[in-house]
Amino acid sequence: MDMQLLEKGLSAVEEAMMAIVDSDVNVLYDASEHILSSGGKRVRPRVAFLAYLAAGGNEIEQVVPMATAVEMVHTATLVHDDINDHSVLRRGRPTVHSIWGRTFALLTGDYLFAKVYQMMAPYGSRQNVIMSNACTRLVEGETLQATAAKAGEMDQETYKEVISRKTASLFEAAARMGAIQAGADEALENALAEYAYNLGLTFQIVDDILDIIGDPETMGKPIGTDVSQGRGVMVAQNGHAAEMVLEETAVSAPNSVEQMINDLRESGAVQLARFQAQRVAQRAREALTAVPPSPARDEMEDLIEQVLNRDS
Amino acid sequence: MDMQLLEKGLSAVEEAMMAIVDSDVNVLYDASEHILSSGGKRVRPRVAFLAYLAAGGNEIEQVVPMATAVEMVHTATLVHDDINDHSVLRRGRPTVHSIWGRTFALLTGDYLFAKVYQMMAPYGSRQNVIMSNACTRLVEGETLQATAAKAGEMDQETYKEVISRKTASLFEAAARMGAIQAGADEALENALAEYAYNLGLTFQIVDDILDIIGDPETMGKPIGTDVSQGRGVMVAQNGHAAEMVLEETAVSAPNSVEQMINDLRESGAVQLARFQAQRVAQRAREALTAVPPSPARDEMEDLIEQVLNRDS
Repeated sequence: MDMQLLEKGLSAVEEAMMAIVDSDVNVLYDASEHILSSGGKRVRPRVAFLAYLAAGGNEIEQVVPMATAVEMVHTATLVHDDINDHSVLRRGRPTVHSIWGRTFALLTGDYLFAKVYQMMAPYGSRQNVIMSNACTRLVEGETLQATAAKAGEMDQETYKEVISRKTASLFEAAARMGAIQAGADEALENALAEYAYNLGLTFQIVDDILDIIGDPETMGKPIGTDVSQGRGVMVAQNGHAAEMVLEETAVSAPNSVEQMINDLRESGAVQLARFQAQRVAQRAREALTAVPPSPARDEMEDLIEQVLNRDS
Repeated sequence: MDMQLLEKGLSAVEEAMMAIVDSDVNVLYDASEHILSSGGKRVRPRVAFLAYLAAGGNEIEQVVPMATAVEMVHTATLVHDDINDHSVLRRGRPTVHSIWGRTFALLTGDYLFAKVYQMMAPYGSRQNVIMSNACTRLVEGETLQATAAKAGEMDQETYKEVISRKTASLFEAAARMGAIQAGADEALENALAEYAYNLGLTFQIVDDILDIIGDPETMGKPIGTDVSQGRGVMVAQNGHAAEMVLEETAVSAPNSVEQMINDLRESGAVQLARFQAQRVAQRAREALTAVPPSPARDEMEDLIEQVLNRDS
C-alpha cells in the first residue's frame, strides 16, 4: 500500500513539474521541459514521500507540491551550476546553456526557482522557513565550493561543510517537511531528518567518487568535471594525493585532468572516500532505528543501499 | 503620523536587508552588502508601505518583512541582469560580477532570492502566491526582453508586455500584499494594485527614457545600455525611427550606440515616450480616486510626480 502511494506520488511530481513550468514565454517552457524531462533519480522527492509515509501520513497528494518544489530547487541549481562549470552534458543531453545560451539558462534557473515558492505557498510558515533555509544553505555550499576551488584549497573540513550545505540540507528539508505534514512528533521528525541528512552526504560522496571512476556513458555526462575544478572529493580525502594533484593542476598540462584521475584512482583515495560514504550511510541506518517499522521504513533502508551502490 | 510610520518602515527595511544577508560565507555577505548598501530608490517597499497605510493599517512592522522581500527580489534581478548585460556600473559603483566575477554574482543573486522567501514565510498563503507569481512574471518579462533583443524585434506590443511583466508586476504585488495585510476589501485592494501597476509602467518608461537622455553622472551608470542591446523603449515607441535605428545596429558601426542615441533624441521618440508615461501616470492617478483620502494617499499622488520627473 505504502509503496503504491509512493509510486503515485512520484508520478504526480512528474506531472506537477510539467504543469507548473507552462508559460507563454516559449524559451522558459522549452528549457524547463528539456531539463525536467531528462530523467534524474528523483531521490529528493522520494525522501519527502517516504518520510511522510514513515511518519504515518496516508494522503500522498498533500506532499506532492512540496516534493515537486524540492526537485525544482535541485533542478534550478543544476541549470545554474552547469553555467558556472561550463558543462555541456547532463543526463546524457546537452545542458540548457549549451542549447539556449547563458542568458536564457540563467533566466530558466531563476524561473524554476520562482516556481518553487508557487508550489510551497499552500504550506504553513514552518515548512516555508525550512525550505528557504535549505535553499540558503544550498547556495552557501555552492559558494564555499567555488571559493575553495578558486583558491585551490579544499581541505577535509571544507569538503564536509560543502557537501553538508549543498546537498545534505535539501535532503534533510525534504524529510522534515514530509514528517511535519504527517504530524510527526519532534523526535520522529528529527530521526527522519537525521536519516535524510546522512543519506544526502552519502549521495554526494558517491557522486564525487563517480566523477573519478564512473562510466561516462552510464552517467550521461563526462567524468573529471569536479576534479578538473579542484573540488573533487578526493582532493579532500587524501592529503598527500591531493597535494600532488593540486600541484599538477597548477602546471596545467594538456592531459592533466586525465592524469589527475589516474593518480586518484591509484592513490587509494577512492577507497578512502568509499569508507567515508559507508560511515555516513551507517549513520543514516542508525537514525532509522528510531522510526517505527513500516514498509516505508524498509524502503528507506533499501534506498541507502541503492545510493551507495549506484553507478550513475 | 502616516509619514512617520513610512520613514520608520523604510529604515527598518534597510536594517532587515543587512541582517538577513548575514552569512559565514564571506563573499555572499560582501557582495550582498555591496549591492544593498549602494542606495537605490526603494520605491517598491515604499509602495508596499503606502498601500498598507492607505488601506488603514497602522502596525508598520507587520509590513517590514514583505517590503524587504520585494526590494530583495528587485536587487536579485539587478545582480543577474548585470551579468547578462555585461554592465560594469550600477548606482555609481562597480557591479557585483565586475568585482567578484560571474560565478559569484550568479550565486549572490540566487542567495538574495532564497532570502526573499525566508522573509515571506511568516505571511499567509495568499500573499506568498502573489509574491511568487510576481517573481515568475518578472523572469518572464526579462526573458521576453532578451528574446526580442536577440531577434532585433521589439514592437510596441512586446514592449508593453515586457515592462508590464518585468517591472509593473512587482509594483502591483507590493501594493496588493500591503493592502491585504491591512485587511483591505477587494475593491480597495484592486484600486491600490491598479495604482501600483501603472506607477510601475510609468517608472519603467521613464527609466528607458533616461537611458537615452539621462546624465550618466547623476544616474551612476552609463546611458545607452538598453539601446545598444536593441531593447530601448524608443525602438518600440516610434515605428519609423525604430526601423532606422535597427538597421544601423545591424551595420554595427563603431559609433552606432552614440549615433543611435542621437538619432533617437532627434526623432521625437523621447517626446512620444514621455506622452506614454503621462498616459499611464494618469491611470495611476485615476486609480487613487477609489482610495479614501489620507496622508498616505497624498503621498502616493506625490510619488507619481516624483517618478515622472526623476532624473536618476
